[in-house]
Amino acid sequence: MKFLAEIEILPKKGLLDPQGKAVLHGMGQIGLPQVSDVRVGKFITLEMEAASSEEAHAAAETACKKLLANLIMEGYRIRISAQ
Amino acid sequence: MKFLAEIEILPKKGLLDPQGKAVLHGMGQIGLPQVSDVRVGKFITLEMEAASSEEAHAAAETACKKLLANLIMEGYRIRISAQ
Repeated sequence: MKFLAEIEILPKKGLLDPQGKAVLHGMGQIGLPQVSDVRVGKFITLEMEAASSEEAHAAAETACKKLLANLIMEGYRIRISAQ
Repeated sequence: MKFLAEIEILPKKGLLDPQGKAVLHGMGQIGLPQVSDVRVGKFITLEMEAASSEEAHAAAETACKKLLANLIMEGYRIRISAQ
């Protein structure tokens, strides 16, 4: 079966996020001063063959740990859906 | 009320995604040849004050159109949750 893994990667809370700070500054300039915090990370989708959604989740987890996320500085969330 | 907007930004289908192609190549090298497609985009969270989730959604939409996404090359999805 074909599965889609949607992976959200964000800098961990408490760590500096200079990109987020820059975007927060921009929010005031485009008329959105109500925005009080911005964090910027990566969104990655993987299409894959797997026997079950558990197997797809395990593959996405391996991808995060070995390649996609820097586990010291970033956290990740994985969503799996059948295609 | 405080709301969190979670924004996923991806290159539009059919457009070149060189980062995605590079990551796809890496998938084979870390033992995940079952991954057949990768797309790489941005994940951005905004914390804001708003009177309703509709108002928060409208602010996030403005942020995407004016600052966060390149609408020629990227599409975006917004999720709003109350904090």
